Amino acid sequence: MTETQKFIQTIQSWLFEAADVIRMNLESELTVQQKNGRTDLVTNMDEQTQEFLMNKIQTNFPEDQILGEEKGYNTLKSFAGRVWIIDPIDGTMNFVMERENFCIMLAVYEDGIGKLGFIYDVMREELYWGGKGLGVYRNNQLLKAPTMKALADGLWGMNAYMHGKNIHHATEIGQASMGVRISGCAGLEIIAMLKGNHHGYLSNLSPWDYAAGLVLLEEFGFKYSGITGKPLTFAGREYFIAATPETYDEVFTRYLNESE
Amino acid sequence: MTETQKFIQTIQSWLFEAADVIRMNLESELTVQQKNGRTDLVTNMDEQTQEFLMNKIQTNFPEDQILGEEKGYNTLKSFAGRVWIIDPIDGTMNFVMERENFCIMLAVYEDGIGKLGFIYDVMREELYWGGKGLGVYRNNQLLKAPTMKALADGLWGMNAYMHGKNIHHATEIGQASMGVRISGCAGLEIIAMLKGNHHGYLSNLSPWDYAAGLVLLEEFGFKYSGITGKPLTFAGREYFIAATPETYDEVFTRYLNESE
Repeated sequence: MTETQKFIQTIQSWLFEAADVIRMNLESELTVQQKNGRTDLVTNMDEQTQEFLMNKIQTNFPEDQILGEEKGYNTLKSFAGRVWIIDPIDGTMNFVMERENFCIMLAVYEDGIGKLGFIYDVMREELYWGGKGLGVYRNNQLLKAPTMKALADGLWGMNAYMHGKNIHHATEIGQASMGVRISGCAGLEIIAMLKGNHHGYLSNLSPWDYAAGLVLLEEFGFKYSGITGKPLTFAGREYFIAATPETYDEVFTRYLNESE
Repeated sequence: MTETQKFIQTIQSWLFEAADVIRMNLESELTVQQKNGRTDLVTNMDEQTQEFLMNKIQTNFPEDQILGEEKGYNTLKSFAGRVWIIDPIDGTMNFVMERENFCIMLAVYEDGIGKLGFIYDVMREELYWGGKGLGVYRNNQLLKAPTMKALADGLWGMNAYMHGKNIHHATEIGQASMGVRISGCAGLEIIAMLKGNHHGYLSNLSPWDYAAGLVLLEEFGFKYSGITGKPLTFAGREYFIAATPETYDEVFTRYLNESE
């Protein structure tokens, strides 16, 4: 087994352990608090899962930096060296309301370049993972890159607020597609693209929402950026677009060109 | 075993057989045609599944009437006697694009009253079924009615077009909830309500989209109607609302009162 394989197995074992703890606590009463408003929630399980993963990283790789959604780990001055990016529970609202349709996401970046990405759909027990040059896997199965559909030929994943208010032409883009889907979980939206179920995704995301996904989307040849076409900043929340190359280009030509 | 139990088992065996055929044909090329526009699709599997179920009904219960989505069976002059209502593939767009997130739905009505409802999530192999006075089951497990949440406290299932255009205040209703979800499949939206994942659903549906669901929603104490509060007509496509009683009343008081 190569060093990389061992490294990947170690990370996977952490994710499986974290997911087991979440599943065991599904029936217990959650402590739910608001962060930035009534629909932006955090639970004790978000915090506990991040703490668990941070502990593993800090014990095994004390030199590395960590960026995480909860508890003051949500900014970094520099992305030099190895950086771990953690979303302990992506789709916290679904976790609270549905006890399903949420993910654990973890990414490994080196000097700002995405090396490994892991998106774990906890309740379906499906781990999508991969890395630069390694391919994309679901659990142990190597996946084929999906057919790269044009805008009019595929389903589009969307942020509910953007769709309801036509922010950055979101409603129009949806109508030009085959249909809009809203899951409330960035990880699930990215999984839907990796599977070929959806051909685009428009949202408003923080670095931990997209860090793991970008590694996998890139490996399969999707395009992604901020809403102006500039690279994502990894600093705070920003508008996010990812799509098949043809769809991405068509959306920018028809809806997001800067001269408007 | 009672007559009713035998009757239910017979219906379930038909659904399982129909689902097996669909699953076996997942990898084969579909014949996809447009019905009323670019995003209203029908496949050979929709037609074949309806034919299969109609054959079973006609062979076993030749006196009964059938209302079905495909092939000219989509209206009935009278609902007298026993009527079977079939949606062979609910969520055809998902079936075509995702090969998952679709249902087979079947309902049994007697003199216009819903007696039995079946919603089968084919790829998850989850059959939600039940009847008037029988309770609601997932496969063999009797389910408890979910907590009946208020508008501000739950997730809302929505039709994409209505949400994008704020038809009948859909966008506002969504914003007053904890969040909007769009699955593109009426059966999955109703399952989400039966589980307690969602507390309301607003869409534009045909009788076969809601016939089975109403039996189950009613058994759990949800309220439902057309968008003016009048009973659903079972004749053609119409706006549809279902929600917990508190949420339903709040939506009508705040958004759908007729004096507007």
